[in-house]
Amino acid sequence: MVKESEPCGRLEWRINVPDGTSRVLVPECMSHNRIYGKLQGFVMGFISKIWGFLQRAWKLAKNEPKKVMHCVKVGMALSLVSLFYYMRPLYEGVGGNAMWAVMTVVVVFEYTVGATLCKCVNRATGTFLAGALGLGVHWIASQSGEKFEPVILQGSVFLLAAAATFSRFIPSIKARFDYGAMIFILTFTLVSVSGYRVEQLFELAHHRLSTIAIGTSICLLTSMLFCPVWAGNELHNLIRNNMEKLSDSLDGCVADYFQDDVKANNTKSEASCKILQGYKCALNSKATEESLANFARWEPTHGGFNFGHPWKEYIKVGASLRSCAYCIEALNGSISSDTKAPDFLKKHFSEFCITLSGNSSAVLKELAVVISTMTKSSKIDVMVEEMRNAVQQLQNALASLSKQSIETTERETGESVNGMGEGNAIPTVTVVTLVEIVPLVTVSSLLIDIAARTEKVVETVNGLAEKAEFRVESAEKMKKCQNSKAVNQISRENEDDKTMMTLQKV
Amino acid sequence: MVKESEPCGRLEWRINVPDGTSRVLVPECMSHNRIYGKLQGFVMGFISKIWGFLQRAWKLAKNEPKKVMHCVKVGMALSLVSLFYYMRPLYEGVGGNAMWAVMTVVVVFEYTVGATLCKCVNRATGTFLAGALGLGVHWIASQSGEKFEPVILQGSVFLLAAAATFSRFIPSIKARFDYGAMIFILTFTLVSVSGYRVEQLFELAHHRLSTIAIGTSICLLTSMLFCPVWAGNELHNLIRNNMEKLSDSLDGCVADYFQDDVKANNTKSEASCKILQGYKCALNSKATEESLANFARWEPTHGGFNFGHPWKEYIKVGASLRSCAYCIEALNGSISSDTKAPDFLKKHFSEFCITLSGNSSAVLKELAVVISTMTKSSKIDVMVEEMRNAVQQLQNALASLSKQSIETTERETGESVNGMGEGNAIPTVTVVTLVEIVPLVTVSSLLIDIAARTEKVVETVNGLAEKAEFRVESAEKMKKCQNSKAVNQISRENEDDKTMMTLQKV
Repeated sequence: MVKESEPCGRLEWRINVPDGTSRVLVPECMSHNRIYGKLQGFVMGFISKIWGFLQRAWKLAKNEPKKVMHCVKVGMALSLVSLFYYMRPLYEGVGGNAMWAVMTVVVVFEYTVGATLCKCVNRATGTFLAGALGLGVHWIASQSGEKFEPVILQGSVFLLAAAATFSRFIPSIKARFDYGAMIFILTFTLVSVSGYRVEQLFELAHHRLSTIAIGTSICLLTSMLFCPVWAGNELHNLIRNNMEKLSDSLDGCVADYFQDDVKANNTKSEASCKILQGYKCALNSKATEESLANFARWEPTHGGFNFGHPWKEYIKVGASLRSCAYCIEALNGSISSDTKAPDFLKKHFSEFCITLSGNSSAVLKELAVVISTMTKSSKIDVMVEEMRNAVQQLQNALASLSKQSIETTERETGESVNGMGEGNAIPTVTVVTLVEIVPLVTVSSLLIDIAARTEKVVETVNGLAEKAEFRVESAEKMKKCQNSKAVNQISRENEDDKTMMTLQKV
Repeated sequence: MVKESEPCGRLEWRINVPDGTSRVLVPECMSHNRIYGKLQGFVMGFISKIWGFLQRAWKLAKNEPKKVMHCVKVGMALSLVSLFYYMRPLYEGVGGNAMWAVMTVVVVFEYTVGATLCKCVNRATGTFLAGALGLGVHWIASQSGEKFEPVILQGSVFLLAAAATFSRFIPSIKARFDYGAMIFILTFTLVSVSGYRVEQLFELAHHRLSTIAIGTSICLLTSMLFCPVWAGNELHNLIRNNMEKLSDSLDGCVADYFQDDVKANNTKSEASCKILQGYKCALNSKATEESLANFARWEPTHGGFNFGHPWKEYIKVGASLRSCAYCIEALNGSISSDTKAPDFLKKHFSEFCITLSGNSSAVLKELAVVISTMTKSSKIDVMVEEMRNAVQQLQNALASLSKQSIETTERETGESVNGMGEGNAIPTVTVVTLVEIVPLVTVSSLLIDIAARTEKVVETVNGLAEKAEFRVESAEKMKKCQNSKAVNQISRENEDDKTMMTLQKV
């Protein structure tokens, strides 16, 4: 071993470099130690990678126990299916019908009840339609002689597969029946390819459908009975959380800008950064919202949601929230700009800006409460009015800025920076150049824009509250409402009684 | 028939309403005409719905012929698979192995080559791993006696299914191996549920794998040879198109604001509205970009893209574009605000703002050219410098606004609106209140922000150009580059010759 590590002395590779010197090439002698070290490094790297992966997985599991529960449910459903087959040995192996139940469970079981239901319905409908159509085509082909049979079968497979594939590109079908179209193509081709006679096919279809029904029902039962995750609920919570996050980041963002810089740097912890960046969740949740709304409409009544709950309204609320979030993103950009406004102006404006942002975020928070309690708020109109007042005050402040700034400077410093060229008779007037107040004006203007967009959010939430028939909040109104309902019922009952009596008389 | 349509006269239903009057209930006698009318309306509504659907489908097909081609390809692949089975009747029906090839084609064939490849690799790997593991578990179970066999099998199904399902929630695995994990669960459960002996399973696995291989190769051949749609290409074009749209809407948006209002209303056609809203494409393309980048990395060399093309860089470019788009959205909001700036100021600023937005959009256009030709631009640095100058000019304009505005008013109108309280000695000075110029300042500030974000886009595109080794544009540089390369090669050859000679000497 020592011999191999020694520099090899017999063969020498020498290079003559153009400048006249020459170099000896020393061959790279790999010692066992180096190989061992490399191997160790590789193994350690691999282990640390696996360890990191496991840590991330553990964090995910800890943060979202619902997902762990879903995994247990999948394991349970599959055990159930296989148990079913252990106890009733109906099958003759993997090729038999047993596999269809297993396959159904694996393919159809999704995280939310709505998605599972959607896939179940799609699978059943697709299989049934394609089976029926396939049988029909099969019969036609068998009647038309041996020569035309393969032509008809091939042609129909080609045409129907192409048509069904095309339908998957159409947005309205893609959203709801994508999986059904795939199952349609699959079943139709399988039926066409099979060399069975029509009678055999009927028997096969019977077996197939019954096993699919077993798989589907096991899926649905497991999915709905053990810790169900409703797509509707998830959507509801997603929208509410996004609203709260948006409200928090708006508050944090404005407070961050107007508080003293030194203080800001000291107190800016990781948590507050996370809050500031909260609005980004709303920016990227469009696809999730749409798919959840799509699944939610398949779900039966659960919690406070009926079957016909207006899930589309949630998408509108989400869109209006996103339009708010875009503005907050722009606000963040102009807040981190380098130009600093004069301190006295900043102080003067901070009051109005913080009031306005506080009002907007309070409206958003109230809306989040409206959504989470599904109760119309009696305060919201007042709060919107307050927000409008704050907008007006900020606009007034902007309008009176020239006067105000001059007075402030006179009082505070008395320093004269005359920006008007021909300033001959005014000794202590300061005109602040625009470039200094650009960030302030931009922040104010964006805050006003955000207030306008918040009003849009209020509109969409009101639309949702109307269509979903949210309860009315205040106790008095509730009483009134209940009273009037009771009165209505009594008078209706009276009428019914009278009608009955009249009917008996006639 | 006429009798049935006559009002029924024998039985009378009467209601006594509480106010003392009484009403006779007239039963609703549906005439045949009304039924016929309703039926007609229903049929016509149905037909018009179908017609509308077909029209939309036709529009989609006309706009995206690639998608139609994909449908034809799917039909072709399925016909090929079934043809294969017509010519070699290897199978005994749907339950046999024929179905695995058909199933593979239906499930695996995706729109882009990358997605198809990804699914093929996932399917093959998942099946192989789960098959091997399943055989191992089966063997262990069969050795451990009849009592423990079902326990071991059930337990392993439960544990592995739960673990694999959990892995599908981990983002890095979900992005690449989601389908593989599903196939793993499916195959493992099927092998475990089956009552086969291990030898039989080997034979089955052989058949299964060979049919899957047939299906996979038919998919890949059809997908790659006939009008292939490369995910990489799609991503490349998506990013370029988004860049161009962003540039157009930025231009349109600013021009729209600064041109005369009357003119604007007259000329605002549908096409220009579409251009203005173009930036919205960039807002919502995050998910598409990520999935395309994910599929693109599976693709072999095609067009100008090598196997290791840095697709992740495209995601960075996309993100920086989106951050630009957020600002344009805010710009759109403040442009449509009600407050109008004084005309002379608007005119004064229009020059600087239009120059700046023109510069920014020109940079974006040039970057689109860089991406589409995959050639580094020699102009881009100059253009960025011009954009910075424009930013500086706009800032100067803002800084000198107080002076400028006064002079302008003096020259133009000579009207005196003194906003300074103690204006005793200055007769013709106009101080514009801030509220009037808020929109102008906001637009300017947002434009400056957009310019900063455009520089970020330039950085990300430069990063892409470095990693993807884009060509250098100018002919001279090319020549120089080629010359230096040639010189390098000659000197290297010389060195090689000398080395050879030395070696021969030693």
